[in-house]
Order: sequence, then C-alpha cells, then structure tokens
Amino acid sequence: MINASPDLRQQIEAQPFIQPRQGLRSSPIEGVMLTGADVDAIAGLLHLRERQPFTVYGSDRVLAVLEANPIFDVLARDCVRRERVALNAPFEPRHVDGSACGLEVELFDVPGKVALYLERGSSPADLQGEPGDTVGVEVRARGERLIYIPGCAQVTERLKQRLAGASVVLFDGTLWEDDEMIRLGLGPKTGARMGHMSVSGDKGTMAAFRDIPVRRKIFVHINNSNPILLDDSVERRLVMKAGWEVAYDGMEVSP
Amino acid sequence: MINASPDLRQQIEAQPFIQPRQGLRSSPIEGVMLTGADVDAIAGLLHLRERQPFTVYGSDRVLAVLEANPIFDVLARDCVRRERVALNAPFEPRHVDGSACGLEVELFDVPGKVALYLERGSSPADLQGEPGDTVGVEVRARGERLIYIPGCAQVTERLKQRLAGASVVLFDGTLWEDDEMIRLGLGPKTGARMGHMSVSGDKGTMAAFRDIPVRRKIFVHINNSNPILLDDSVERRLVMKAGWEVAYDGMEVSP
Repeated sequence: MINASPDLRQQIEAQPFIQPRQGLRSSPIEGVMLTGADVDAIAGLLHLRERQPFTVYGSDRVLAVLEANPIFDVLARDCVRRERVALNAPFEPRHVDGSACGLEVELFDVPGKVALYLERGSSPADLQGEPGDTVGVEVRARGERLIYIPGCAQVTERLKQRLAGASVVLFDGTLWEDDEMIRLGLGPKTGARMGHMSVSGDKGTMAAFRDIPVRRKIFVHINNSNPILLDDSVERRLVMKAGWEVAYDGMEVSP
Repeated sequence: MINASPDLRQQIEAQPFIQPRQGLRSSPIEGVMLTGADVDAIAGLLHLRERQPFTVYGSDRVLAVLEANPIFDVLARDCVRRERVALNAPFEPRHVDGSACGLEVELFDVPGKVALYLERGSSPADLQGEPGDTVGVEVRARGERLIYIPGCAQVTERLKQRLAGASVVLFDGTLWEDDEMIRLGLGPKTGARMGHMSVSGDKGTMAAFRDIPVRRKIFVHINNSNPILLDDSVERRLVMKAGWEVAYDGMEVSP
C-alpha cells in the first residue's frame, strides 16, 4: 500500500527489476526453503499471501508447525503447495509450471534449538529439539556447491565434512560474542541459549572454519548488536582478515 | 539487520526521529489497539518482539485469537501486557510507567467479517462473525474526536450516529469498486465477500458519508488495486471533490 506520487512512479518505472514480471502482483519467487520454525524464518511467508503460486519446502518438523498454525492458511492451499523434504536426501525443485529448475537441493540437520515460542522447558534436552527443527540447505548446480546455514549452535565433525570444498558458504553471524545481548542490555540470553555460536572466540565460527577449505565464506543473519555490521569496525577488519565477507541487503552471489 | 555503511550511518545520524530514544532498541510505541485478527492487523506485532514493554489492547474475540496462537508468544508476557477491552466502554490507556496518557479510547463493533484464515464456512452467518471480530477505535482528547475504522462492510444508522461530528475519520478505503480484484485478475473475491464496502457507487463510502458531518475524512487501508492511490487519477479527483483525503506513508494528522 503505497502512495504513488508522480516522482515515485518515475522511480519505479526506471527500475524494472522491482516491477512484477507477470500481471499486477507476481513475484519471481517460485520456491521457499524453510530452515526452521522461528519467526525470522517463517513470518516472511505472511507477506507472500497474494495468490501467486509457489512451493514451500521444509522438514517434517517445520511443516508440522505451519500445519498447526491457522495464520499460515492465508497462503491458499490451491495456490501455495507445501512439500515435505526428507533430510539428507537430494531433490530437484520444480518451477510452478512443473519444469525442472536445474538445481539439486538437500536439507540437512544442524545443531540448533526449537523455535523460541515453542519452548516447553529450559533443560538442554527441551531446548535441543529434534532433527529437522534447525536445518541447513545445500544447493548444487554445474559442479558448484552453495551451503546456507543461518542458525547453528556448533560446527560438528559431520558438518565440517559437508562444508569442506563448498564453493560458497552463507553462515550464522548472529553475535560477535556469546554475552553480547546481556552486556548491551538487550535481553537476558546468551547466544548459546538462543542456539547460535558466536563469530569470535576459541569456540567461535572463525576458529571453527580455520581448517575447512571453502572458496567464499559469508556471514548472514547478523544481529544488530554485532559490530561486524559496521564497515569501519575493528571486528569487521578481523573477519575480513580471516577471509570472511559480511552480507548486505541486495547482495548477489555468484560462485 | 542492516549493513551500516558510512553513508547510511551519516543519514541515520542526521535523522534523530528514526533513532531509538532509550537504549539500542526502544520504540515510542507504548500501546497497540487491535481492530481485528486478520493478518494485516496482527502480523505487525511480530516485528515488535524486541523486549520493549508495551500493551496490546483488543476485544475478547481478537485477544482470544492471539491466545490460541503460539507464534505471538514471541511477545514475552513479562514485557508485553495484553489488556481485554469491553466494547462501547471508554477507557484511558496508560504509559508503561503507569501514568495517564491523557487520551480516552473506546472500541466499538462495526459490520465486518471473521479473519480470512479463521473462516469455517462461507455462509453469510459463518462469515459475519461475532461482535468484537471487527472493531473501530474512537480516540478523544481536548474535545476532539478521532475515529479509526480500517475495515467496514456497511455504514449502519448506529455507526452514522457515532461518526457525526467527529474531528477526523480514518476509514476503510480498500477498494474503489466491489469487483475490482476479480476484474484485474488478482483474486476471485468481491469486496463484500472480504468484508469491505467500496469507495464508489450508490452503496459506497463516499455516498454513505454524504450526509454525515465530519471535519476531516481520510481513506486508509487502501489496496494496491485502488486507483485513488494515484495522485493523477480521475478517481483521486473524485474523492477529493467529495471532501476526502488519501493517506500516505508518514502522514501526520492533527485535528
């Protein structure tokens, strides 16, 4: 709902990439891969309720959360397909017209936790959840491998093996330090309590990736308390020195 | 989650009104009045999950929808109060520190329908819902009366009586014509089926308001298919000629 003043209309007309390609409301999104059931992973679906066909792919666990929540019925079933995806089993997403899209995709479990609003206790077992609560996505095409992991509590040996040799890894960059939110007075929880390992430190992400061969490493899912967001911060220089990039709105990635 | 380049930081620093007033994440929002349980009325709550104290006010019916949906538990109960408000009973919202805010507020039932994703049938009785499913808000201060009705299926005699003499009315401007969505290929539903009267026509909003004395009348909740959004449209000229204004992002209203 915008007020299209003549100036704004000129701007929109000068930027064909923000115009729908078909009809008044189409979007180029034909598939959505869900990596968890937390609000930051699923609330965006509510903005896609314009009767444009697409497919939502997710683990049993994550799609069960959508099924149980009536608000997601705003995505009409005759229009938006939901497809359960087995973990560790490659599949080929299809265009809405049924044709092959040329990508091979695989969802895999990563250490994490259940969604905040689904917590039923605070013991480690309660919080850890089940396989499929937090997943990563691997996308393969033309011999290249892109791996997307927006939330991760720990880089295990198994995960290292998957990451090794990837063309591009987009990885959880939520916090710089585990107690950052507490120190800044933003909340009572550590990163570990929220299911996120930190970027810095001996057990942090930069350290964990030191011996994993990956062509490009990019931090995503960066909390606004994390100083790597600032172009001129010491912390930004440190991650760059360690071979990392920091994602930004509108970033396009080619391998 | 923004990438604060030096340019962007300068811009932000030059605009103090978009900076938090207290701490890193405060917002000036101390109260949210819910006018229904549809996604466009409640999904914005998910963006307020930053542990800033505020109060959500709503009818029994609307708050029951929040209660039944675990996703809204991201608004921590120890931080975000939920207050049930009786219809047609003025109350005085309080600041989060408990002090009076100087406004008198009243929620009142308006003709509408149950939220889209809560429809359990398509008979008129199923769709109409119960009192409190669709409400308007009247705000009074210093002898002025502002009335906010973002969704309305019909202007009844009772509603006319409430509107008469208001300083400002912000009113449902969803569609220009009842069959607009169908004609443009955006969906199969009429405005009436969605619980919205249209702006134009014999039974439309402009006609209904012709004999209601109101100082300022402003269309809000305007669908992107409604031509009154365009500054240079014939339809915009017609609503202006009838004494209406069209709301825009960032609009500030003083009586």
